[in-house]
Amino acid sequence: MNPTINLDRLFNPSSLAMIGASATPLKWGNLILFNILKANFTGAVYPVNPKEDSIMGFKCYPDVASIPGNVDLAVITTPSHTISSLIDECGNKKIPNVVVVTADFSETGVEGARLEKEIAEKARSYGINLVGPNTMGIFSAETSLHALMPMIMPLHGGVSMFSQSGNVGVQMLDYGQQENVGFDKFVSSGNEAVLTIEDYLNYFAADEKTKVILGYVEGVDENSQFVPVAREVTRKKPVLIMKGGRTDVGGNAAASHSGAMAGSTAIFRAAFRQTGIIEASNSQELIDCAKAFSSYPLPKGNRIGIITRGGGWGVLAADACEENGLSVPPLPQSLIKRMDKILPKYWNRKNPIDLVATIAFDPFPECLQMLVEWDGVDAILALGAGFRSFSYQYSQDIKGPKELLDNIEMVKGYMAEKGSRPDETLVQIVDRVKKTGKPIISVSIGSDYAHKKYSEKYGIVSFPTPERAVRVLKHMVSYYRYLNPQE
Amino acid sequence: MNPTINLDRLFNPSSLAMIGASATPLKWGNLILFNILKANFTGAVYPVNPKEDSIMGFKCYPDVASIPGNVDLAVITTPSHTISSLIDECGNKKIPNVVVVTADFSETGVEGARLEKEIAEKARSYGINLVGPNTMGIFSAETSLHALMPMIMPLHGGVSMFSQSGNVGVQMLDYGQQENVGFDKFVSSGNEAVLTIEDYLNYFAADEKTKVILGYVEGVDENSQFVPVAREVTRKKPVLIMKGGRTDVGGNAAASHSGAMAGSTAIFRAAFRQTGIIEASNSQELIDCAKAFSSYPLPKGNRIGIITRGGGWGVLAADACEENGLSVPPLPQSLIKRMDKILPKYWNRKNPIDLVATIAFDPFPECLQMLVEWDGVDAILALGAGFRSFSYQYSQDIKGPKELLDNIEMVKGYMAEKGSRPDETLVQIVDRVKKTGKPIISVSIGSDYAHKKYSEKYGIVSFPTPERAVRVLKHMVSYYRYLNPQE
Repeated sequence: MNPTINLDRLFNPSSLAMIGASATPLKWGNLILFNILKANFTGAVYPVNPKEDSIMGFKCYPDVASIPGNVDLAVITTPSHTISSLIDECGNKKIPNVVVVTADFSETGVEGARLEKEIAEKARSYGINLVGPNTMGIFSAETSLHALMPMIMPLHGGVSMFSQSGNVGVQMLDYGQQENVGFDKFVSSGNEAVLTIEDYLNYFAADEKTKVILGYVEGVDENSQFVPVAREVTRKKPVLIMKGGRTDVGGNAAASHSGAMAGSTAIFRAAFRQTGIIEASNSQELIDCAKAFSSYPLPKGNRIGIITRGGGWGVLAADACEENGLSVPPLPQSLIKRMDKILPKYWNRKNPIDLVATIAFDPFPECLQMLVEWDGVDAILALGAGFRSFSYQYSQDIKGPKELLDNIEMVKGYMAEKGSRPDETLVQIVDRVKKTGKPIISVSIGSDYAHKKYSEKYGIVSFPTPERAVRVLKHMVSYYRYLNPQE
Repeated sequence: MNPTINLDRLFNPSSLAMIGASATPLKWGNLILFNILKANFTGAVYPVNPKEDSIMGFKCYPDVASIPGNVDLAVITTPSHTISSLIDECGNKKIPNVVVVTADFSETGVEGARLEKEIAEKARSYGINLVGPNTMGIFSAETSLHALMPMIMPLHGGVSMFSQSGNVGVQMLDYGQQENVGFDKFVSSGNEAVLTIEDYLNYFAADEKTKVILGYVEGVDENSQFVPVAREVTRKKPVLIMKGGRTDVGGNAAASHSGAMAGSTAIFRAAFRQTGIIEASNSQELIDCAKAFSSYPLPKGNRIGIITRGGGWGVLAADACEENGLSVPPLPQSLIKRMDKILPKYWNRKNPIDLVATIAFDPFPECLQMLVEWDGVDAILALGAGFRSFSYQYSQDIKGPKELLDNIEMVKGYMAEKGSRPDETLVQIVDRVKKTGKPIISVSIGSDYAHKKYSEKYGIVSFPTPERAVRVLKHMVSYYRYLNPQE
């Protein structure tokens, strides 16, 4: 790792050479160039291939030296035996950044390892920042750089990610698209012959656009500075890691995959704890945490207020809290008295607050407001917050059998219209989070991926089950406590 | 519990009285009747309300006695103080089944408890099967009976469910719709004044259309026959339970919700183990298990073969297997030799099998076939099975800058067309499951809810993350071992 390294022009080049660009289908050089062009990369693009005059309408250069002007980044897809001399060409052209997509290096045996060492040494001698080899590429929102093997269009946002698996990484981008989590930068670190995950971690830490750092880690070598670097970085922004190779059989698989030694899980876990890294236990939790950490303030403690439209979901949420080290404190008399004024006499007077709503009257917004203002809770779980007036609208216009059928269409229309109008409760959530600094996580519970809609439309962190929401809160509380051990 | 009880006409009545039917919006009697009519219930419908002549085009009767002909089921939504005399009316009319939706009984205090006892005793004296009170209703696919408070149209299938929370129950129906899990019968058991969850369990056990039984359970009373009943039922079909009130605070919430004593979690867990009940740890796992148990044969052991398009996902799947008590055995030399013939020389020769596919050549189907035929594995995780030739098609027609833009549309067209054509690998999975009796669970990993499409279109059990697939396999293996302890 070199702490003075600057990867600005790697992620946001003003010009790019695509070495191994191809007009031939079924070549990676064809696909990656297509992806770059399709995404409207903002810089200049120079395809390099001695066999073609032009590719996809772009003039094609026979070699690197022939490219006019400066090149910030070269992406290479040609066979492994050609890479060494191409590094020379790039070095002579003073290209500061090279992404070697090509595989068949150290991950496949002794000869590959020898080649990899050779290109690493060459790259270092030229001062080249080399990504890979054996990488699925890089992405950056600012310049719309999609130098990626798969066809994928990540949402833009404040999350940056490094991944020791190309597939896991790009599929997290895809998952982010479904869960409304936007990315700023992404790199598949490949075999890490030169640049390592601690370089990316360091760079993302200093990068102003990156608010949250995600990583998929299989292993680091024994001289790695990952732990000391992480310790610095977590002071500035959250670092959320998914660890592959946690078990013997997984570690064994990792060894032949990324070539990384998975290392002892116990040692990794201890390092994670000491450095304030959040470890997500699976890919869903990783993307869920990315959503919450990039959108919401941290809770300042582990006391959770739960408000629910359905008693059973409140029970399950309370169970999940207790099982994850969160506390569900009883309501104080003062709050009970205030709620007594608006809730039916037989309401449960407990946390979780089980709303005994009639169809006509919705006490959710008022009770939520009282709950979030109570200084006895640090975060809120709002179960069924966005449900509001569907039932009301649904029931408004039912009159007769012919009308019944017509009204089914009308109800659908209402639902669609509702979906396009702001829901006051959801608007209120965003407002309360801002005003109180307390995260209010919505749980939409199934309901046609409402959680995605709530986050897209209102900026609300929302999940379809209470268990997912609780896991995220648990990690937020841990991180807050790591940053504020004295409290 | 009465083991001779017959609930056929409760779930599939040929005629139904809707007592408390209403033409007035914002009344449950209005909504439930609307739901029943909207779903095209196959039986006769008799709205009962002394204040109306007709509701939604149906003749309205002033009281139960005025209804012409037999009534199999009465659904009641009138206030709690009216229920007792309505039970008399139903008894005198010889209505064998009554669903009391009305709340404000034992869950709200002493007076409610007294009323509940009164109606229970009356119902018993008339031989009435009473559901509730404080229930969100019942559903049955056969007669399209949607006597439910919420607007919901469950998919039809082989899963039947009882739930001690109406909300949790109906939202599982909704979740099933999203995850392609179809239901045959559903009942929200409410306060269980007469019929209890063991009655429903017993009935579902004998019901030919029910292949898998789901339950949400908060607690049972001390005289409950739930455990001995469950022990019998699990011999015939899988019983998948989600337990609410697992913790002190959750149990406390449950006490005021369903009135049930949550009871010691340790005792419940022990009972689950002894009776072969599968306990799902959250709602997602419950619906995932429902999907797999209702579609696939059980694995006959815990040995899992993993085949993956992406090394990292193989690592994570192997980790999840080992962490959940599943084994990932090494490949035998004979199988390695067979795969050597079709895979590039540097393939990993391990389980998980990391496919080193080129764009043009897809070794997935052949390798999957070899893997599933190997007698060293009991089940298969196929990661990225449905990915196939998107990249291929994507790259076919790229030629120039104008064409580039046109081709983006063409690519979209291809993708859409691909989506409507059978994918050979996915077809092969279904075929192999049938022929070998080994479950092959697909993991689509994100990818725009592909897992739902695969299950809808091909009948494949598919999940978006390996961790979800592994949890399901773990439960299937446990159940197989419970049924076959000698193996």
